[in-house]
Amino acid sequence: MTTETLDAPRGGDWVDSDFLKQLAAVIRAEDSYGQWDDKSDADIMSEFIVTREERRDIPIIGDPDPEVMWRISKFYDAIGLMIEKRSGCMASQMQKMSHEGFGRIVLIAGRLVVVTKHLRDVHRFGFETWEKLAEAGEKVIADAVATIETYPEPARA
Amino acid sequence: MTTETLDAPRGGDWVDSDFLKQLAAVIRAEDSYGQWDDKSDADIMSEFIVTREERRDIPIIGDPDPEVMWRISKFYDAIGLMIEKRSGCMASQMQKMSHEGFGRIVLIAGRLVVVTKHLRDVHRFGFETWEKLAEAGEKVIADAVATIETYPEPARA
Repeated sequence: MTTETLDAPRGGDWVDSDFLKQLAAVIRAEDSYGQWDDKSDADIMSEFIVTREERRDIPIIGDPDPEVMWRISKFYDAIGLMIEKRSGCMASQMQKMSHEGFGRIVLIAGRLVVVTKHLRDVHRFGFETWEKLAEAGEKVIADAVATIETYPEPARA
Repeated sequence: MTTETLDAPRGGDWVDSDFLKQLAAVIRAEDSYGQWDDKSDADIMSEFIVTREERRDIPIIGDPDPEVMWRISKFYDAIGLMIEKRSGCMASQMQKMSHEGFGRIVLIAGRLVVVTKHLRDVHRFGFETWEKLAEAGEKVIADAVATIETYPEPARA
């Protein structure tokens, strides 16, 4: 069992997920010269995986790394695009981040806040497995679509 | 006429306005040691006045001055507090500002975006007269309260 666990790929097995595909597409959109064309989605998204051991080693003092902020933005950009695909409402992102790694992210469609998330330990943003990354994204998307269905008028205002 | 105009105080006549009083209170809240107790509201808010001549002299290149960003935050903080007084809904502020002085500010109550403002020429944020400053604040507040009345449920969600 132990050796099996050690041999398992980082992030565990890849999962088939619309959200993971969207996130990969958002990241590939920045690859203007096609330098990542040979890389798999798992390769270009490897930084979204933070194992339990890695997590422990990341200090949470000082300003969060710009790369972490970039990853968080891409995560919510992908969520915004999936919300648009499923509801027809374009959702734009706003962030408010403190220097200590606390913050708030919202996605706004029309007059409606479709996603609101308070973040902490921003420094350690990441997921243990692809499955958990996919689930986290899908959950936020589902909640946002449900919010739009509850309040359709301000979402389209 | 000309001499009269030249002799007029900067910002024109003071006006009696709930918004101006709220803005002064927001600014005085930062004066922990009472150093501004002897100063009038017009004194402590003098930087909100930008005359036509001053406006022309402010370059709009480079990052906006942190003091301008501070003024904009205080302006919308005061608006948020007035919205709460008039509607009972607490409104919190989020900003998204580019390095070029373009940006967006929103005030969010519950799930509702009660104020959404796209800013440009942030460097030159200011008002010619107290009357114009008061009117600008009052208008944003009135629109926000009307928006809350239109969508009361998400505002209280």
